[in-house]
Amino acid sequence: MNAPTAAAHLLPEINLRDVPQALIDALQARFAAQCSLAQAVREQHGRDEGSFQAPPPSAVVFAQNTQDVADAVKLASQYEVPVIPYGAGSSLEGHLLAVQGGISIDVSRMNQVLIVNAEDLTVTVQPGITRKALNDAIKDTGLFFPIDPGADASIGGMAATRASGTNAVRYGTMRENVLALEVVTASGEVIHTGTRAKKSSAGYDLTRLMVGSEGTLGIMTEITVRLYPLPEAVSAAICSFPSIEAAVRTTIQTIQLGVPIARVELIDHHTVRMVNAHSKLTLREEPMLLMEFHGSPSSVKEQAETVQDIASEFGGNAFEWASTPEERTRLWTARHNAYFAAVQSRPGCRAISTDTCVPISRLADCLLDSVQEAEESGIPYFLVGHVGDGNFHFGYLLDPNIPEERVTAEDLNHKLVARALSMGGTCTGEHGVGLHKMGFLLDETGAGAVDMMRAIKRALDPKNILNPGKIFAL
Amino acid sequence: MNAPTAAAHLLPEINLRDVPQALIDALQARFAAQCSLAQAVREQHGRDEGSFQAPPPSAVVFAQNTQDVADAVKLASQYEVPVIPYGAGSSLEGHLLAVQGGISIDVSRMNQVLIVNAEDLTVTVQPGITRKALNDAIKDTGLFFPIDPGADASIGGMAATRASGTNAVRYGTMRENVLALEVVTASGEVIHTGTRAKKSSAGYDLTRLMVGSEGTLGIMTEITVRLYPLPEAVSAAICSFPSIEAAVRTTIQTIQLGVPIARVELIDHHTVRMVNAHSKLTLREEPMLLMEFHGSPSSVKEQAETVQDIASEFGGNAFEWASTPEERTRLWTARHNAYFAAVQSRPGCRAISTDTCVPISRLADCLLDSVQEAEESGIPYFLVGHVGDGNFHFGYLLDPNIPEERVTAEDLNHKLVARALSMGGTCTGEHGVGLHKMGFLLDETGAGAVDMMRAIKRALDPKNILNPGKIFAL
Repeated sequence: MNAPTAAAHLLPEINLRDVPQALIDALQARFAAQCSLAQAVREQHGRDEGSFQAPPPSAVVFAQNTQDVADAVKLASQYEVPVIPYGAGSSLEGHLLAVQGGISIDVSRMNQVLIVNAEDLTVTVQPGITRKALNDAIKDTGLFFPIDPGADASIGGMAATRASGTNAVRYGTMRENVLALEVVTASGEVIHTGTRAKKSSAGYDLTRLMVGSEGTLGIMTEITVRLYPLPEAVSAAICSFPSIEAAVRTTIQTIQLGVPIARVELIDHHTVRMVNAHSKLTLREEPMLLMEFHGSPSSVKEQAETVQDIASEFGGNAFEWASTPEERTRLWTARHNAYFAAVQSRPGCRAISTDTCVPISRLADCLLDSVQEAEESGIPYFLVGHVGDGNFHFGYLLDPNIPEERVTAEDLNHKLVARALSMGGTCTGEHGVGLHKMGFLLDETGAGAVDMMRAIKRALDPKNILNPGKIFAL
Repeated sequence: MNAPTAAAHLLPEINLRDVPQALIDALQARFAAQCSLAQAVREQHGRDEGSFQAPPPSAVVFAQNTQDVADAVKLASQYEVPVIPYGAGSSLEGHLLAVQGGISIDVSRMNQVLIVNAEDLTVTVQPGITRKALNDAIKDTGLFFPIDPGADASIGGMAATRASGTNAVRYGTMRENVLALEVVTASGEVIHTGTRAKKSSAGYDLTRLMVGSEGTLGIMTEITVRLYPLPEAVSAAICSFPSIEAAVRTTIQTIQLGVPIARVELIDHHTVRMVNAHSKLTLREEPMLLMEFHGSPSSVKEQAETVQDIASEFGGNAFEWASTPEERTRLWTARHNAYFAAVQSRPGCRAISTDTCVPISRLADCLLDSVQEAEESGIPYFLVGHVGDGNFHFGYLLDPNIPEERVTAEDLNHKLVARALSMGGTCTGEHGVGLHKMGFLLDETGAGAVDMMRAIKRALDPKNILNPGKIFAL
């Protein structure tokens, strides 16, 4: 780990590559109405939920099957033009921006469940299906797909960013839950990685290499993920605390005791206020933990009693329970809308979201020092966290008309990342590197590891056409 | 998945590269007594527990720290000579054989626990420490490292082969349990991958790429793995069954119901007989499951009752319990000695071990057909399996003086792998590809994926000096 450099948070230069008319003609000939040049369509595909902007891609191809993706990539390769895969558009790190120009390959129409293997707890899907659509499609099997990053992201996008979210503390992240892939390579070939076997030692772990590669090594066209039996019993509880520290220390002790809690989310008092306003709730405006317990009825009871005991030691209030599916949905919807609630709390603002993750023993130190810095900065912010994993997000709410605010926010982010790295943590727990964290990645892993990533990128994508300009500069 | 080719099981040609005297001189100058040229030392480092043979390496360097490894690799790189990392020597797939000549780097003296982070459930070790030594070293922390491949393998070797074993059904494999690495690259540089954070989206997953790369992409010099709290209650039970099918169907239903069983091992009646003879036990000579349950006392009771009910439905006998640590150790030692018990049952024999792993729903079909083929072949064999993961091993016990037996055994293996692949499985659940399964790997993943592995290998090891000739031909 090296000290973060001053340039860590700067957006790399936009450096547009030429998109020849001959390529556009070829795409239109091959894809007809599936290829759009409309300004509005291109603009929609050239942005995400992050705070950066770039010119839109030159064309958008709406792929309907693997062959469409392969053919689009082959054409792009022929003309050495960038291709950027697009799923649900919910990235926060500029992954979808055409910073080197090129074309967008929209896979949202590739949204089918291909094979449910309920007996093996696996399902194979196309990349464009969203996590909610997947869970709807399998709801009669008694199984569910637990990974929940908040947004109704596509499974392809979630795999590409190694997403996780609220349930990861119990069920793991996309890293643990993707078993096998079909991938279109930079030359437009179709390869397969992994199998449906639960484990394997068969050669390099190409599946894990692709997961989290942010579209820079291949475009996923089929994804096999694990499913889990719906728990016999589910209970959600809210617990308010006198301080953030009390909530965090409750979390740390819960994890260290090995309680298999399914969700444990920190929401600070600012965020509770914003959520109350947005979702018309009357939650107590204090730091709180929003928890969920899964298991047999006796196990859920045992887990909840253990955590209530810990919380009480730290001054937490009695749990308020949400035991019906409707009450739980209302609560989790409120949690998932925290980002939008926060953005709406300051009309016209843009949010910069941090994503550090630290070993659980350092969570209180890392988080509390950063809260103090955020308070002192005067910039409105919200704080939420998947604290059971040591992962939390500050969202700094910036007035885009006041450039100094961005400087201040980036400085806060910079200090936070430096603190997390010094504690053995990572600059990004789940959002990915994208455009925003290229400098932080270098600080985190050192030049040697980033050079190894570059060598892999050059070997698998010699023309640098797969989502170029993301993760690292080549 | 393609049909296995006839050449799948042939050992690749031995193709020795020149080891210049100047390199030997340089190694002796740098490493003095840490560099051995003795015939016995070289021979010990040029073989493993598998059935293949090759000439020994030209020298053995006993590394004592990362710098030693880096310096040895730099010298080897300068002379373009292969280097083969050596841990405990317990590989089954010829990983340690110097099929292209070169030098062995023995890391068994790098056997220290570097940092225990008990609060975060992580530990950082050197690669030469064995799993038993690690568990001894941390026994006062209330934590343990669960991965148990049977042999007292080194943590480095286990990471390099993506090992798993008896506890993986509950705790996962090395894939899930390695968090971070220090690695010496092909040029002798030292890089770091991953952090101690529980999750991360920071760039390509180099940790997972190194895990399972069998020494072909780098040499691990520090490894950070997860630990787990020692379960409050542990109970082990044996259950005998009227048939292998009954035992397997009990396992399938246990897994499909989501029982968090910690271990569920199948041992066929041949193996029970061999184990009884070797370990002086009086186990009932019928197919059996050897199980272990971890959790709170109430959870262990609940799990065991559920599995007993399932077993009874399939004609299983009443569980015989081993609840004291001594009784459990005796049982698991007997299980771990099954391989040696089997080999001793046919004096002078060599064992060929299979390692297929299939989705749990196909386990009975895959296993029972292969049992029938093995019985019909007339070759003595044993059968054990980590059946909760769908992984099982036939061991064919060959008389090396009867070449036809090897042909027959390889044919059995060939049919078994073809069957497993046709069911969505893998040719190797935990042993790795090494020399023996290069053809099977191609059958399993197809040429496109193996070509991608080759491209990565060429990019990270352009002189092809890191354990060359393993996993795939270049």
